[in-house]
Amino acid sequence: MDTFPLTVGSVTRALPVVKVSPTRSIPLIEMLGDFELTNAVADELVKLIPLETEMLFTVETSGVALGHAVAERLNLPYKVARRHRRSYFKNPLIQEVEGMTLGVHDTLWLDGRHAEQLVGKRVSILADVVVSGSTNASLAKLVERAGGIVLGYYSGFVQGEPIIPVNYVYRLPTQLEGTPV
Amino acid sequence: MDTFPLTVGSVTRALPVVKVSPTRSIPLIEMLGDFELTNAVADELVKLIPLETEMLFTVETSGVALGHAVAERLNLPYKVARRHRRSYFKNPLIQEVEGMTLGVHDTLWLDGRHAEQLVGKRVSILADVVVSGSTNASLAKLVERAGGIVLGYYSGFVQGEPIIPVNYVYRLPTQLEGTPV
Repeated sequence: MDTFPLTVGSVTRALPVVKVSPTRSIPLIEMLGDFELTNAVADELVKLIPLETEMLFTVETSGVALGHAVAERLNLPYKVARRHRRSYFKNPLIQEVEGMTLGVHDTLWLDGRHAEQLVGKRVSILADVVVSGSTNASLAKLVERAGGIVLGYYSGFVQGEPIIPVNYVYRLPTQLEGTPV
Repeated sequence: MDTFPLTVGSVTRALPVVKVSPTRSIPLIEMLGDFELTNAVADELVKLIPLETEMLFTVETSGVALGHAVAERLNLPYKVARRHRRSYFKNPLIQEVEGMTLGVHDTLWLDGRHAEQLVGKRVSILADVVVSGSTNASLAKLVERAGGIVLGYYSGFVQGEPIIPVNYVYRLPTQLEGTPV
């Protein structure tokens, strides 16, 4: 199988299939650079997000366009956690992500200027794809450390068995038959 | 001056002023997380982009939401150069960015799957803010190496004296009077 068919709303895509191990191939979902797919996913995702949401929270990079699209549909502010420090950060919150491999860690950064705006806010966490859920669990920790209230996790796609309860639009397979690309 | 007033279309913001050296403070423009400002800038930017454009090209992270917004307004595809390698890249193009400080380099990555789609295409390069222009000059090199034709550089904001000719919506000052935050 060279591609994997995907339909979201009125948008159809042939996802490339990528080999992730000698015996395993998966469809690669890339929303970055695809405004039609991003908008189609946003149209579905807004139906899952609780009405009491006051702020959306996601992480760079692939979540950014979806965050923008969902935010404009719900007329809500969104915030973006960064994966690298920026020189203009002021009192940033720093949160480790526990990776799948022991000892391997990513780090998330939230500028203190944005953290202040989360105080007391009901926050829905947004993602384009959730695999292990560890990054999203760390986003939730950032919200709580900033003084916000996490309402839940909302993702365009799930591809795996996340450690967190995710509300999602579409489940992607984690194993495909046939010859990988 | 604690903040700097900005109006784009019908959107007004009080930009934070940040100290970048002991004697210099500048307004900090952040479109990431601000869908209203992003859309207002996109509304103005599309007026500058040549009609013959077939593809838009930008770089993560802060350019992503603007890329999405401009792409949907013009109904054109957009591509995003990455700043870090991803495991699923296939024959990526790798391009150094010549930094302002001798010997300091960033690296841009373009997945070969996306590079293929630039062949023969007339490409407009998009940015949220152009300062030195070195990153955008490297985006142009990526387009040319992929076989595309660069039409020009189009940015929401210019803040400095770029080494490239940039078409922009708004010029931000590089020096503010008064006490920095």
